[in-house]
Amino acid sequence: MDKNQTKFILDEKDLATAWYNIQADLPEPLPPLLHPGTKEPTQLPPPLFCDEINKQEFSKERWIDIPEEVQSVYRLWRPTTLFRAHKLEKALDTPAKIYYKFEDSSPAGSHKPNTAVPQAYYNNKAGIKRITTETGAGQWGSAMAMACQYFGIELKVYMVRVSYQQKPYRRNLMEVWGAKCVPSPSPDTQIGQKMLAEDPNHPGSLGIAISEACEDAFAHDDTRYALGSVLNHVILHQTVIGLETKKLMEKIGDYPDIVIACVGGGSNAGGMMMPFVQDKIKGKKKDLRLICVEPTGSPSITKGLLAFDYGDVAGMAPIAFMYTLGHDFVPAPIHAGGLRYHGMSPLISHLVKLGYLEATAVPQLATFEAGIKFARTEGYISAPETDHAIKVTIDEALKCREEGKSKTIVLAHSGHGHFDMGAYDAYLSGKLEDFEYPEEKIKEAQKKLPQVNLK
Amino acid sequence: MDKNQTKFILDEKDLATAWYNIQADLPEPLPPLLHPGTKEPTQLPPPLFCDEINKQEFSKERWIDIPEEVQSVYRLWRPTTLFRAHKLEKALDTPAKIYYKFEDSSPAGSHKPNTAVPQAYYNNKAGIKRITTETGAGQWGSAMAMACQYFGIELKVYMVRVSYQQKPYRRNLMEVWGAKCVPSPSPDTQIGQKMLAEDPNHPGSLGIAISEACEDAFAHDDTRYALGSVLNHVILHQTVIGLETKKLMEKIGDYPDIVIACVGGGSNAGGMMMPFVQDKIKGKKKDLRLICVEPTGSPSITKGLLAFDYGDVAGMAPIAFMYTLGHDFVPAPIHAGGLRYHGMSPLISHLVKLGYLEATAVPQLATFEAGIKFARTEGYISAPETDHAIKVTIDEALKCREEGKSKTIVLAHSGHGHFDMGAYDAYLSGKLEDFEYPEEKIKEAQKKLPQVNLK
Repeated sequence: MDKNQTKFILDEKDLATAWYNIQADLPEPLPPLLHPGTKEPTQLPPPLFCDEINKQEFSKERWIDIPEEVQSVYRLWRPTTLFRAHKLEKALDTPAKIYYKFEDSSPAGSHKPNTAVPQAYYNNKAGIKRITTETGAGQWGSAMAMACQYFGIELKVYMVRVSYQQKPYRRNLMEVWGAKCVPSPSPDTQIGQKMLAEDPNHPGSLGIAISEACEDAFAHDDTRYALGSVLNHVILHQTVIGLETKKLMEKIGDYPDIVIACVGGGSNAGGMMMPFVQDKIKGKKKDLRLICVEPTGSPSITKGLLAFDYGDVAGMAPIAFMYTLGHDFVPAPIHAGGLRYHGMSPLISHLVKLGYLEATAVPQLATFEAGIKFARTEGYISAPETDHAIKVTIDEALKCREEGKSKTIVLAHSGHGHFDMGAYDAYLSGKLEDFEYPEEKIKEAQKKLPQVNLK
Repeated sequence: MDKNQTKFILDEKDLATAWYNIQADLPEPLPPLLHPGTKEPTQLPPPLFCDEINKQEFSKERWIDIPEEVQSVYRLWRPTTLFRAHKLEKALDTPAKIYYKFEDSSPAGSHKPNTAVPQAYYNNKAGIKRITTETGAGQWGSAMAMACQYFGIELKVYMVRVSYQQKPYRRNLMEVWGAKCVPSPSPDTQIGQKMLAEDPNHPGSLGIAISEACEDAFAHDDTRYALGSVLNHVILHQTVIGLETKKLMEKIGDYPDIVIACVGGGSNAGGMMMPFVQDKIKGKKKDLRLICVEPTGSPSITKGLLAFDYGDVAGMAPIAFMYTLGHDFVPAPIHAGGLRYHGMSPLISHLVKLGYLEATAVPQLATFEAGIKFARTEGYISAPETDHAIKVTIDEALKCREEGKSKTIVLAHSGHGHFDMGAYDAYLSGKLEDFEYPEEKIKEAQKKLPQVNLK
């Protein structure tokens, strides 16, 4: 192999034909989802999700076939490139080998279409004509807009009003792909009307937007709801990232010592890490470290409780056993909008508890510093979310330098920052700040957890 | 070969190791550049350009080696992917085979770094510490910022003030890569001061920005100037696009009937087409059509004069023999900022005159319609410049449908539109208009051409 080789790519014929389902290999099964009303074990609410999605959410099958129609869309950008970060390594003067798996190259600019496309596909197959969803900064909404386009599904996106106003480019992106995007709270739902009556200039929140999207889906027979993170089927679809990475590492003749990914709801980290967790469960390379990086402004794993809690602010979504900062916790206004969630994927939570994954939290300013270091060496402008993983990658590479160890580090490069340049500008102009999670908050959160008595 | 294959990629070891210089194969040599003062044949002004760049500008060597240091940066994104546009073909119900060569994947998002990187490299090798350049919409400035980063060169970009204010994201991009970007006219040069004295809120123009960048370079011994289009050495560096495309078509076992690219100054079209022009000159596939697409708002080839004219508005740059709308022509305010130039690359002009290239002009609204069609089939959001080539690609594919012919069309996909979403928004909201070039303008332009008497 050429020692200068920078990009490692699979042939298109090596595109994964099945997603990997970690539930088949868990040494201990996941705790159940609970109905928010009865607090009894439940499925995903069927009027919100189509049958195939519901089936996948609870499946114990190890491999779930990727339909040809989904593969056909994946082929527009998949398999994605694994880069060797020669220039970053040189700048850090580290003996570590740094690789990054590049999800930026999807048309929507992140890993989100990996699940948006199958979700649109299965809904179309079930005869659904219309989907609703919510979006904060717009990554998920734009991925879903792109996906729905391919399957002739009408999409309505409830976008948190303050983002709708501040980030018109992502809204425009959704519109170019034919989606309808409204600022939330909107006059289109009862909950939206109620919020607007209280405050006509209500800035909105992800919680309200979720509630509006769900209410809309409940109210229309031809409509289902789509979610871009947290749930098992989402992580299932994202495993194409880790599956490709493993195949590429094999081709290179190497295997990671450390895999690093940012976590908000868990779809990116889950997608990259589950195939590696399988190896750990099977006893291959037990000292492999799988590091989830969260922001200090929303540190659900590192500071939160592992408990049953509601998935949404209003307590209408199912109750999940997960790391949580409390369902009414409002994460700090960091620019990594995709990491601002009070809870954590139940799968990720479970695997942290079982010791297969570890977590760390990093403050905002250090992540932008890392992102700029990356841009000035590797060239690419990373999403603020991705900068969290870059920060820890750099830290681990510097540790390798101190210890004189040539470890292999793999970074999940989840997306580009082209629509987040304002955040970089704010950083470079000294207008950003760090946020710490106030310790006393955890006591408040504890008091509001739902009371659950499982038999 | 799998008939569904969507992406065709060369191995990294097949990266071009030399640029192709069309000047070696021209059946008739290029007319000379003339000094703006003496109007005698001249080199590029030496205090503006370093020796190696000057040498390449006039070289008749067929192949010019790509230095290993340049290849090392190219490897971050090159070779780039050639896509088969299966989904666009299907939507158009055309028997044509449409391929697009994807320059969007460079860190700066366009083909511009292909020449920015060698320009920064040669200047660094010549001991230059600092480069100045101008930028309109920011594509070139950001590519140069990225490139200078790799070779430790300080960059100062004079950015047309109205763009500086309206397109802060591209300015931020330059800053993330460490460049200094100032609005032009600026108080940093005499010409800038003069303009600001006349109007403190002067909106600026590309002509003024060029003059400021040149004045700055003239005034500092350690500083040279860099240009992102028009000149021969720029097109030389861009030939990596066409060289890779030819290799990939060979791998596929096909050869284009039509190659389509947008033209402003000519760097993108030149880079894609020169290796195909070589084939035509050699007599291979004489009916190959090479179509340059320009905007009706700045139609230098289709409506302009083929004459000696100044390269810049102020008449300070060398005089070139080219298609021109007159050096003081102000192109219509179309969103495809990269196509707003009064002149045309002398090489492109020469090859149009000799019959190797053809040109057509398309109006703005139709280009956005085409770009949205592309986004809703192929997924990717294209630059407004690229939309011009997409429009003609769609037209040619529809002609194939009418004629029942399965032609092979290759589109130069020169860049993404992530920083141009505002333009798409304006289009979707019905706020854009078409521009026609007023015929009487050409008589005015004719009167202002420099008087040249070559022996």
